Amino acid sequence: MEGQKLLVNGDRLKASLEKFADFGQTDNNGVTRLALSREDEEARNYFRSCCEKLGMAVSIDDMGNMYALLEGETENPPIVMGSHLDSVKKGGRFDGVFGVAAGLEVIRTIVDNSIKPRLPLMLVNFTNEEGARFEPSMMASGVITGKFEKELMMQKQDENGITFEQALKMIGYNGDSSNRLKNATALLEMHIEQGPILEAENLTIGIVECVVGMVCYEINVSGESNHAGTTPMSMRKDALFAANDVIAEIRKKLGKLDNELVFTIGRMNTYPNIHTVIPNKVIFTVEARHKDPLIMKQVESVLKDLDTSVELEDCSMAAIKLWDRNTVWFDETILEHIEESVKSLGYSYKTMASGAGHDAQFMASMVPTAMIFVPSIKGKSHCEEELTPWEDCEKGVNVLLETVLSLGK
Amino acid sequence: MEGQKLLVNGDRLKASLEKFADFGQTDNNGVTRLALSREDEEARNYFRSCCEKLGMAVSIDDMGNMYALLEGETENPPIVMGSHLDSVKKGGRFDGVFGVAAGLEVIRTIVDNSIKPRLPLMLVNFTNEEGARFEPSMMASGVITGKFEKELMMQKQDENGITFEQALKMIGYNGDSSNRLKNATALLEMHIEQGPILEAENLTIGIVECVVGMVCYEINVSGESNHAGTTPMSMRKDALFAANDVIAEIRKKLGKLDNELVFTIGRMNTYPNIHTVIPNKVIFTVEARHKDPLIMKQVESVLKDLDTSVELEDCSMAAIKLWDRNTVWFDETILEHIEESVKSLGYSYKTMASGAGHDAQFMASMVPTAMIFVPSIKGKSHCEEELTPWEDCEKGVNVLLETVLSLGK
Repeated sequence: MEGQKLLVNGDRLKASLEKFADFGQTDNNGVTRLALSREDEEARNYFRSCCEKLGMAVSIDDMGNMYALLEGETENPPIVMGSHLDSVKKGGRFDGVFGVAAGLEVIRTIVDNSIKPRLPLMLVNFTNEEGARFEPSMMASGVITGKFEKELMMQKQDENGITFEQALKMIGYNGDSSNRLKNATALLEMHIEQGPILEAENLTIGIVECVVGMVCYEINVSGESNHAGTTPMSMRKDALFAANDVIAEIRKKLGKLDNELVFTIGRMNTYPNIHTVIPNKVIFTVEARHKDPLIMKQVESVLKDLDTSVELEDCSMAAIKLWDRNTVWFDETILEHIEESVKSLGYSYKTMASGAGHDAQFMASMVPTAMIFVPSIKGKSHCEEELTPWEDCEKGVNVLLETVLSLGK
Repeated sequence: MEGQKLLVNGDRLKASLEKFADFGQTDNNGVTRLALSREDEEARNYFRSCCEKLGMAVSIDDMGNMYALLEGETENPPIVMGSHLDSVKKGGRFDGVFGVAAGLEVIRTIVDNSIKPRLPLMLVNFTNEEGARFEPSMMASGVITGKFEKELMMQKQDENGITFEQALKMIGYNGDSSNRLKNATALLEMHIEQGPILEAENLTIGIVECVVGMVCYEINVSGESNHAGTTPMSMRKDALFAANDVIAEIRKKLGKLDNELVFTIGRMNTYPNIHTVIPNKVIFTVEARHKDPLIMKQVESVLKDLDTSVELEDCSMAAIKLWDRNTVWFDETILEHIEESVKSLGYSYKTMASGAGHDAQFMASMVPTAMIFVPSIKGKSHCEEELTPWEDCEKGVNVLLETVLSLGK
């Protein structure tokens, strides 16, 4: 079966990814390509020239999103592929750019083989997915899907006080709102997993059925500062010891809920943070993710009940919800097409959730959307060590090509 | 009995403490009088003028320590009283200055009553006890007792880059090393408790038999950072969760050792401290104090054995000793004189340890030394709320006077 299939050119894909990695390359083989920076501009210009060489028409919208269109036999809404070209500071060579390069390789393969697709095919580069230079992340997909207010986003500043709007003009990527993507037959975002599951289970492809819901709480534990030498243990109101008990309770209770639940205490600060002073305050975040809203409800119950379930003695605590977001489910029809494509290629796979956020989760509210993952070695991402074997990259893009052909039928 | 005793003038003592509190007074009735600051200079000048009015000869040594001598009938080594005039930032109106004002009130009472003491009486103001502007604390008593190297201390800088030596010259308190205190019949440091024990037990006087020994460790827990959304719980190396287990073990093990042991995790930092990233490192201090070296040995054993006693799973840890100091025992003969004096005045008291450090602990290696405590309301110190009732201040100084008279016999 596989021998008869149309397959992408793995060497060309690798060369393409290596070329993109030149724009903002770091000393340790990573990439710093912040949104709308000179490096991002170079990568965009290169991407545009690649598309134009393939006979695609490139347009830019008012958020700087880039769209390259390959005409089809019909004028139906296009099948869209893509992701983002920006990176975090000292990020890796795959996050985002792989989804763009994958789409480019699909188009090249189709053009090389003189296939005229029935539906138009479109490549997209979403501006500022990372939010590393201008918060929030997924800014531009958020604006075109109505999640964020454009005027507010335009005024977001980087650490040097340059606004998003100014930066967009500086690199000449301030296009027209009439170019925004409004409709699509399907949108496919190919991405590295950024987690260790596929590698650990020795699988090649992740069919991403959803982006998991999240909730983030801030826990404030209050006690009383006193001299570390003169205050007997029995007369202390030690906020750090109380926080130690609260964290133990959180781990015990949340640890029982579900195997797929992840929860993290990532930020924790102690006050006044002097070795000879008993802490009077400890503040930490609890961030939890799961696809099932019922599990997330249980998480919130645990956090809200901490002040009664933990013996705080003379300390006190408050659990404040900072934000949450619901699970985003991807399009079932597209997921079926992906699964059939993977099977037809004979690759190992699993259906899984994305624990990280992606432009696709916003786009899903507007057009039928799904994602495809390839493995991340040791699950590392947002760091210079980020790595996906070339072979897995190639197989992933074969799945993307096969899915596009299948959807186009 | 008490009616026949020589007693100090409580109103004059209060006025004297209030006058000192003017030098560096804060908005909330506290004091900021950093060592060798303009405020410290004003307090020193005022102290000097008070002493000179009493016919005392004031001399300054090369560390800026001030000595005021009231001649006695003999030229034997003096009985020395005093403490320090410097404060921490936004400190209280009693810490340090009370010991100086107490000595001044004793001299005034003796002079008022035309008593010619047999032994010379000396008041001392030790420079930079707090170490708040120039580290370390107890700097000047440390130098004259050989604990710290003078040349090193002279080059210590404040946050504006001014050296201790420069600051000393700026306020004109750079005296001669020949003036250093070298010998004394006794040294008595009167101080507020800075802890809650006397108040809680409804006692007026603390007879301080020792300054407790201390040890300070830094605990480093190492894991691996990863994405909070994409890394399953079972594949994490969460340094914060591991640290939480380590802290629970420390509390369990040290909590069993002895009722008088105090231990504090005052400083704790999490890295990279981002709510969406699993912590790869947590560093915290464990500082413990107890008078018995055997207990302190057990504390160190617990800390050194943590890496085997705690199940760290995939994380690792190291316990690094930052410093320690031994318990300093005060002079038994002086302690007996103090106890007899307290009893003769009919005040309630207990013999206790000092959990905080004081100049007296360094001086004890050179001359017979002891300390007397009065209660601190709610144990508060190093803050603007620091408070000791005037009545307790007065009773404390009566004990000091009685002890000085008793020692002088």
